[in-house]
Amino acid sequence: MQERQRLLLQQIEQKLEAYVPKTNALYHRLLEAMRYSLLDGGKRIRPLLVLEFCRLCGGEPQKALPFACALEMVHTYSLIHDDLPCMDNDDIRRGRPSNHKAFGEDLALLAGDALLTLAFETMLSPESIIQAGADRAAQAAGTLACAAGAHGMVGGQVIDLASEGQQVPLETLQIMDECKTGALILAAAEMGCILAGANEQQKQAAKQYASAIGLAFQIVDDILDVTGTTEDLGKKAGSDADNQKSTYVTLMGLEKARQTVQDLTKQAIRALDIFDDQEVKSELVELAEFLASRNR
Amino acid sequence: MQERQRLLLQQIEQKLEAYVPKTNALYHRLLEAMRYSLLDGGKRIRPLLVLEFCRLCGGEPQKALPFACALEMVHTYSLIHDDLPCMDNDDIRRGRPSNHKAFGEDLALLAGDALLTLAFETMLSPESIIQAGADRAAQAAGTLACAAGAHGMVGGQVIDLASEGQQVPLETLQIMDECKTGALILAAAEMGCILAGANEQQKQAAKQYASAIGLAFQIVDDILDVTGTTEDLGKKAGSDADNQKSTYVTLMGLEKARQTVQDLTKQAIRALDIFDDQEVKSELVELAEFLASRNR
Repeated sequence: MQERQRLLLQQIEQKLEAYVPKTNALYHRLLEAMRYSLLDGGKRIRPLLVLEFCRLCGGEPQKALPFACALEMVHTYSLIHDDLPCMDNDDIRRGRPSNHKAFGEDLALLAGDALLTLAFETMLSPESIIQAGADRAAQAAGTLACAAGAHGMVGGQVIDLASEGQQVPLETLQIMDECKTGALILAAAEMGCILAGANEQQKQAAKQYASAIGLAFQIVDDILDVTGTTEDLGKKAGSDADNQKSTYVTLMGLEKARQTVQDLTKQAIRALDIFDDQEVKSELVELAEFLASRNR
Repeated sequence: MQERQRLLLQQIEQKLEAYVPKTNALYHRLLEAMRYSLLDGGKRIRPLLVLEFCRLCGGEPQKALPFACALEMVHTYSLIHDDLPCMDNDDIRRGRPSNHKAFGEDLALLAGDALLTLAFETMLSPESIIQAGADRAAQAAGTLACAAGAHGMVGGQVIDLASEGQQVPLETLQIMDECKTGALILAAAEMGCILAGANEQQKQAAKQYASAIGLAFQIVDDILDVTGTTEDLGKKAGSDADNQKSTYVTLMGLEKARQTVQDLTKQAIRALDIFDDQEVKSELVELAEFLASRNR
């Protein structure tokens, strides 16, 4: 990882921590539950994409920081709710007890609700609005809302629930993933562009890159569920097979799935051709390659 | 109820319905679950307050409609999550099976998540931003986020959970209610003011009105839990006593609680003195009196 990217990641961590301060309020346990999941060493890929695309399109990443952090809050809330007993009922997340195991179901539910809400508080705070400009702030926050909602991430969850225990065709799997995980990754790139005031051509290229790595990301997830270990993954390996889920691996086979990841990664990198900033481009190339070759 | 207010309520219903259209999407059950709770004949007090205060401060209620509807979406999501087994575990809401009884816990959880998110999609849609202006749209949406989040409604829920089964002092009860139910009612008045471009004096008066009716509303809830019937309430009467909850009635006695509602209602009405529009004022007086004397 390059030095500049490491600095961005550091800034993301510091800001995330600052957005959920410890407190003596009567509801301090809520903030502890929020911090537990938000500050647990996630890869921060989504916020990084916001900042990188903001830079790539000539904007100032500083102004995009609240939006980058908001995206991570939305991602974190979705993981907390996903792990709940009425959903995937997962006891482990990133190698630790999942939120409801640590804090109880009621607090986990509310911590998720509060993180989703905090995302919008953060993007629409007076400081954030002044920094980014009201027009861009409103547009970027609206983009995240659309990506996270019924026609995006939550819709994808519902398709996933409806597909449980049955074989689904590749087309359904792809729609599900475009909603469930793809939408937030796409939103990351779009938000970076909006905050930088990017032109249409730049936005299109950013979306191509993000769509490609988003799909590749999901296919790698399916591959790792088959080839990874519970220890590496920080969550239970083999759970797709246990749940008789259709995945890219079951529908394409392991080899084809791996090849598709390679193809998508190349597509993503090619989409960056129109941009000039070699330094940011090389970081985004590295990111795409890292996501394709990761083992957790 | 006056004719103009009836028209506003009609517009709210139509808009709410339009924001969650029926669909053939793979996730159509999600939208059904959202519609089930959103379009179930609620009193629409919060959205009405947004529109009335927008008018009272010289704004156009039309431009505030998306924000009024968004507030009702947030209120509805909170009821769905509140009713879940890991929270209050209520089977009945407004005289019908609660959302998770009708759709299952997983869909109810996600319908709540999606309604919270839809609130921000709605306020920050391109049309809404153009109508209201980006600055006012961002500020109003930010106000709702703060009111609904960890330091507002969700924080209040957590205080409520932490107080379960134990006696709490009046001060704690008041902080809890200011967060849990007061914050959204206050936000309604504030959002109306923001969208109308109200001045500081107008905002202060609006907030005084809203704080007073918000607290009165909660005290009436506690009174009705003792004096109302399950049939009238559309939810189980006497549940506070069953749960050994501290309420205004247990802490003040029934008579003092009733007197406080009367005092608060007068305070609310007095706060409107600074405004000129007699028609809107009389509607807000009527609303305050209705809330104080309601039987459900």
